[in-house]
Amino acid sequence: MTKIEQVIDYIDAQLKSRRLTPGMRLPSVRTLAKQLHYSVSTIVEAYERMASMGIIESRAGAGFYVCTPLEPLILSNIEPVREKNLDPIWISRRLLEAPPNLIKLGCGWLPNDWMPHESLRKAIRDASKSPIYELVNYSSPLGLLGLRELLARRLYSKGIEVTPDQVLLTDSGSYSIDLICRFLLKPDDVVLVDDPCYFNFRALLKVHQVKIIGIPYTPQGPDLEAFKQAIEQHHPRLYITNSGIHNPTGATLSQPTAHKLVSLIEQANMIVIEDDIFSDFETAHSPRFSALDGLKHSIYIGSFSKTLSASVRCGYIVAKAEWIDHLVDLKVATSFSHSHFSAQILYKALTDGGYRKHMEQLKIKLSESMRITIEMLEKLEIKPWVIPKAGIFLWCELPADVDIKKMADDCNENGVILALGSSFSQSDRFQQFLRFNVAQCMHPDIFAILEKAMNNARS
Amino acid sequence: MTKIEQVIDYIDAQLKSRRLTPGMRLPSVRTLAKQLHYSVSTIVEAYERMASMGIIESRAGAGFYVCTPLEPLILSNIEPVREKNLDPIWISRRLLEAPPNLIKLGCGWLPNDWMPHESLRKAIRDASKSPIYELVNYSSPLGLLGLRELLARRLYSKGIEVTPDQVLLTDSGSYSIDLICRFLLKPDDVVLVDDPCYFNFRALLKVHQVKIIGIPYTPQGPDLEAFKQAIEQHHPRLYITNSGIHNPTGATLSQPTAHKLVSLIEQANMIVIEDDIFSDFETAHSPRFSALDGLKHSIYIGSFSKTLSASVRCGYIVAKAEWIDHLVDLKVATSFSHSHFSAQILYKALTDGGYRKHMEQLKIKLSESMRITIEMLEKLEIKPWVIPKAGIFLWCELPADVDIKKMADDCNENGVILALGSSFSQSDRFQQFLRFNVAQCMHPDIFAILEKAMNNARS
Repeated sequence: MTKIEQVIDYIDAQLKSRRLTPGMRLPSVRTLAKQLHYSVSTIVEAYERMASMGIIESRAGAGFYVCTPLEPLILSNIEPVREKNLDPIWISRRLLEAPPNLIKLGCGWLPNDWMPHESLRKAIRDASKSPIYELVNYSSPLGLLGLRELLARRLYSKGIEVTPDQVLLTDSGSYSIDLICRFLLKPDDVVLVDDPCYFNFRALLKVHQVKIIGIPYTPQGPDLEAFKQAIEQHHPRLYITNSGIHNPTGATLSQPTAHKLVSLIEQANMIVIEDDIFSDFETAHSPRFSALDGLKHSIYIGSFSKTLSASVRCGYIVAKAEWIDHLVDLKVATSFSHSHFSAQILYKALTDGGYRKHMEQLKIKLSESMRITIEMLEKLEIKPWVIPKAGIFLWCELPADVDIKKMADDCNENGVILALGSSFSQSDRFQQFLRFNVAQCMHPDIFAILEKAMNNARS
Repeated sequence: MTKIEQVIDYIDAQLKSRRLTPGMRLPSVRTLAKQLHYSVSTIVEAYERMASMGIIESRAGAGFYVCTPLEPLILSNIEPVREKNLDPIWISRRLLEAPPNLIKLGCGWLPNDWMPHESLRKAIRDASKSPIYELVNYSSPLGLLGLRELLARRLYSKGIEVTPDQVLLTDSGSYSIDLICRFLLKPDDVVLVDDPCYFNFRALLKVHQVKIIGIPYTPQGPDLEAFKQAIEQHHPRLYITNSGIHNPTGATLSQPTAHKLVSLIEQANMIVIEDDIFSDFETAHSPRFSALDGLKHSIYIGSFSKTLSASVRCGYIVAKAEWIDHLVDLKVATSFSHSHFSAQILYKALTDGGYRKHMEQLKIKLSESMRITIEMLEKLEIKPWVIPKAGIFLWCELPADVDIKKMADDCNENGVILALGSSFSQSDRFQQFLRFNVAQCMHPDIFAILEKAMNNARS
């Protein structure tokens, strides 16, 4: 590639990532020459060529201006993807596209037959008998009152005191976070996430074109010193986290860390989005920001995708009443309504006696799977970073002599999809890590496949 | 209010509408004084007060800067609402919140018992017997293949030739439009809409903070001369319309207008979003942009909310393959998935023989309702602007001596919600118009209530 082509390529990338938009002035020839360490004549020639292609136009004495239409918002253009299998979107799509016979060891959900399908089927049959009105009509803006009342009662037991009017039903947890980001953020704002964090947080924040700062996560929660420094240095607007059961580490926020964080967040006048979608897996109480600060600087998110169904979708947002009212406006404007029928099914399933029994048994089964997985992985010299109190995730470091990417490729060939540590981080700190889903680990062949792949990937 | 308070109020409105954001420089004292026709000392005093309140800060020799956190995106702050009952969001919320006993004459959907609830109930019972996998798992990124194949076949009969991979399922039609706007627009872009147009288009575009230009709508489609002028003057990026059955007028785009528009749109390198959610009500073929231009400059949107269920929600986007791929990325990042179970129910209902029979009968019923409504309204001297070929809408002008707002209040008191013409427009051209829903007009009391309210509102 010639130098001129390189300049054209550079401008093209700026256009594709929407950093340059129609009508904007390009950097002056001199500025760009200095910045790219090229001669002025190289830049002039590149600009002239782009002008002749109709991409930019020169205005007498005023420099060059973009004259192509706006590039669509293509996520892979926003920031170059280092490697496909570390790209959050690519991983999500791959997991969603995977045929049922693949073992999705790296996914964030339970095997199908671990889900309460009998309660669900019963709930669907019940819902099919609802009055016509409930079957065909739009939902009220906030959503099914019975479900919101139930959620308010469940939140009360977590120390979060709200009225049903502070609960807004939506079509999913992810949609809820997105709606809140639209409400609170503008491009170039700074958002703190945990390092490591759930990979789709990064994909979602990319859409909002904000700056993402990772705060090292400790077994007690985010590193307080790093959090404080990030506040001073970057003036973040938002912090997105899972406080109950952390994704990917499985750790639980400790009481003292939670307490100190609430003060920091309050002082910095920032807001926490508490994504608590794994909360029904909990076996013991753990602190919630929304409980500690009374939803002054926090917004709580939940969904039923992990415990009831990811096919019958419904999520919810819990926030102060004033914000819920504004969020309803945004929801009506951008999606008009949500699936009222899904809300009915989930409400019926949640209030079915069978669901509670199922969850009790499931938690025992999960804790047993956790024990077995830890034991089996230890035999392979794979060590958990922390022993989770509950949930489905186990975050593990692999021996230094294992080439993790090679191991992942080998597993892939044997129908097992892994979740590589680096995909949960913008940093390079977790290259030797994997996130295991202990429920998916109960597949009879899994540890043999892992052992073989690991040995093949040893240097 | 003192002049100083007025200045503070002005800046406050700029902050609330996000035209001023954290870190931005305020207009210089001199500039603002000139702009608001106040003395420099008034502006200085106002700025000093705001600085002492911690809203802005002065930087030596460099002016004043915003130092409060970003205001949330509150739609009612973005642009002042003239009157509550003309505010698109307020109308939508009011219609969605209305108890079942109110007559929603102004709504955009069928009465509950006109919907194919028997097909729907059967489909739900069938879906409850699906394999566990279908009940609990996430959807594939594009959505249920069977439904996409069916949609591709249905589109073929409208002259739109696509493969099932060009059909992306989502949770709703509105969500689909929003996703496309995120893909194609940036703040301050110009978007053309019809004048009048569906009121929620304006609410949705407000969220995207774009400039909205209304193009006068004629009984054959948008006014071509005005369209051409708007292109030259505003360089719009997008045009959003309903081509099949237009909301609110019930008009149908004519072949010659469609043909000329396609050329204009192609020349201007802009894109049409064709929102075709009323297409199943059609009785004769009418042109579609997506058919005429082969989806080069058009994107097609559909949903089942109007003909099957607004409670079991599912919508879809039809576009060129390259764009569908990018839209999947955006969908995964912002909502991860959509309700696969809803898609299954709708697929089963659509392929049920009863649905086709229902739609045939429904169209006859609608055309009969249309005839009766026109007749009854004519007795009240309410004239339709155009006689629609099909659909549920009748767009009517009322006699000049009727105070429409008074009439709407009167109807309200009698449990009838009207849709005022002005709510479908940013202009003042439709103050004497109402949109009638002919299906809702079949309520036995309706014309008596209308007549009484009209007489009370006569000057």
